[in-house]
Amino acid sequence: MIERLAIISPGLLGGSIARAAREKSAARRIAIWARRAETRTAIVKQPWCDDAPDTLAAAVAGAGLIIIAAPVDLIVPLTAEIAPHLTPGAIVTDVGSVKGAIARAGAEALSRAQSDATISGKRRDAASTANQFVGSHPMAGSEKTGWEQGTATLFEGRTCFVTPIETTSEAAVRTVSKFWETLGADVFTVTPELHDQIVAHISHLPQLLASSLCSFLAGQNPEWKNFAGGGLRETTRIAGSDPQLWKSILTSNQAPVLAALRGLQAELAKCEQALAAGDWDEVAALMSRGKAYRDGFKA
Amino acid sequence: MIERLAIISPGLLGGSIARAAREKSAARRIAIWARRAETRTAIVKQPWCDDAPDTLAAAVAGAGLIIIAAPVDLIVPLTAEIAPHLTPGAIVTDVGSVKGAIARAGAEALSRAQSDATISGKRRDAASTANQFVGSHPMAGSEKTGWEQGTATLFEGRTCFVTPIETTSEAAVRTVSKFWETLGADVFTVTPELHDQIVAHISHLPQLLASSLCSFLAGQNPEWKNFAGGGLRETTRIAGSDPQLWKSILTSNQAPVLAALRGLQAELAKCEQALAAGDWDEVAALMSRGKAYRDGFKA
Repeated sequence: MIERLAIISPGLLGGSIARAAREKSAARRIAIWARRAETRTAIVKQPWCDDAPDTLAAAVAGAGLIIIAAPVDLIVPLTAEIAPHLTPGAIVTDVGSVKGAIARAGAEALSRAQSDATISGKRRDAASTANQFVGSHPMAGSEKTGWEQGTATLFEGRTCFVTPIETTSEAAVRTVSKFWETLGADVFTVTPELHDQIVAHISHLPQLLASSLCSFLAGQNPEWKNFAGGGLRETTRIAGSDPQLWKSILTSNQAPVLAALRGLQAELAKCEQALAAGDWDEVAALMSRGKAYRDGFKA
Repeated sequence: MIERLAIISPGLLGGSIARAAREKSAARRIAIWARRAETRTAIVKQPWCDDAPDTLAAAVAGAGLIIIAAPVDLIVPLTAEIAPHLTPGAIVTDVGSVKGAIARAGAEALSRAQSDATISGKRRDAASTANQFVGSHPMAGSEKTGWEQGTATLFEGRTCFVTPIETTSEAAVRTVSKFWETLGADVFTVTPELHDQIVAHISHLPQLLASSLCSFLAGQNPEWKNFAGGGLRETTRIAGSDPQLWKSILTSNQAPVLAALRGLQAELAKCEQALAAGDWDEVAALMSRGKAYRDGFKA
């Protein structure tokens, strides 16, 4: 069990982590820092929050595990901001949907703070008490947002990537992995770069497709949406996600997403050619390949 | 209430119609015809089937409403086959996902049989007792198939298109519309051609996208599917649908589907250009248009 867990900038994921950590006894005490005072006032009344201090320094003081639950473009800046205030041996992780840009910069932010402290004589860490940044990505988003929408079961049976780099200690990977497993997630350890390639295909590409389909249909007769059956509803549900959140995800994963999108465009061009030529066997073959893939999903 | 309802070639939709018609008292007696003898043996034991005769002629004899629940490529042939055996004034409808190719050919098959009968002196129908074909399309499919999977609630709150042509009587449109409304559907009356354009966009295009996405991902590392979060799962669920069923739907709706697919490809090309140029505001604008559209769906 984590003695003291700190959650920074809780949204849907941070609010769910706190609930799940309390319910599954993953942490003895849970401190939460939110930027807005009114959020701190509301959140400290929750049964899954023990402490909601005004400052980042107070929130991370004494915490063995710190989870930065902010949008991807704020994760590294927040890591740099908390770095000077961490307890020796503390481990920092995040929940960002991209990892290449974050895992390395996060680790650098911590080691820079530690060398500054060592030079100024404030700290003299042995390797075992050095702070560690280990990127995480629980694949448990939703089109919902806000800590109020969180649920303790959000991570159950979901994939959580943990993305160490060359300098990450095995102990830190173990601690972070164990935390997510306690919350019910299935943990996979991959490099940040492979992670980004995977999610470009299985998460960012479907998001762009759903958004593009809706954007296209909006330019047709928008009343047609009233006729939507289950297929269109399901296919497009994630188009309701927050565009600003996605803008920062896509900004941080440009090249892998572009490669995935171009691959899909090539597949659609094949489909279009078969349709135009009336090559129905080719159309059926494409659909059969798709069905075989989809039928292979875990239930 | 329909005195005698006949359902021809029940699959998921036909099995659901029978259950719903019984539960909601939409028909006093329900006759079902299936091609395979073992299906007839199994289906006649169901509480929502009163009669499962061996022949089409016996199944439609005395029926006021006949619903052909077969795949799209069999609807017109089956209509021609039952035409000589219909009771005067009987109304025939179907549940096919395309209507342009079916609504006109179905009406022609009935009127051809009636003029044959008139010429041979077997029948002398007044306009009020002429048989009518009125196309229907309840938007209530699923990736499930088979009459066993049917449910009485399948049509509740779902769109059902009814697609009369110039020669369809208002009384026939009313009877068919009222039947679907009794089953809980929201009925919209449109021309077969407009219907086909609408479903090309809101049903056939999403299907092709889901199938193409899965087909593309199958050609990448197929193990990545084990990491699929809720977004990919939902976006691709309909890719599990039957390719042979879809092949016949797409064959019957080639031009509208091709136009819809090309429109979507143009939207994706805009998305790709914005991504490649790092024009994140344009990417966010596309996602915002999509979100506004999706947020407008009925709950």
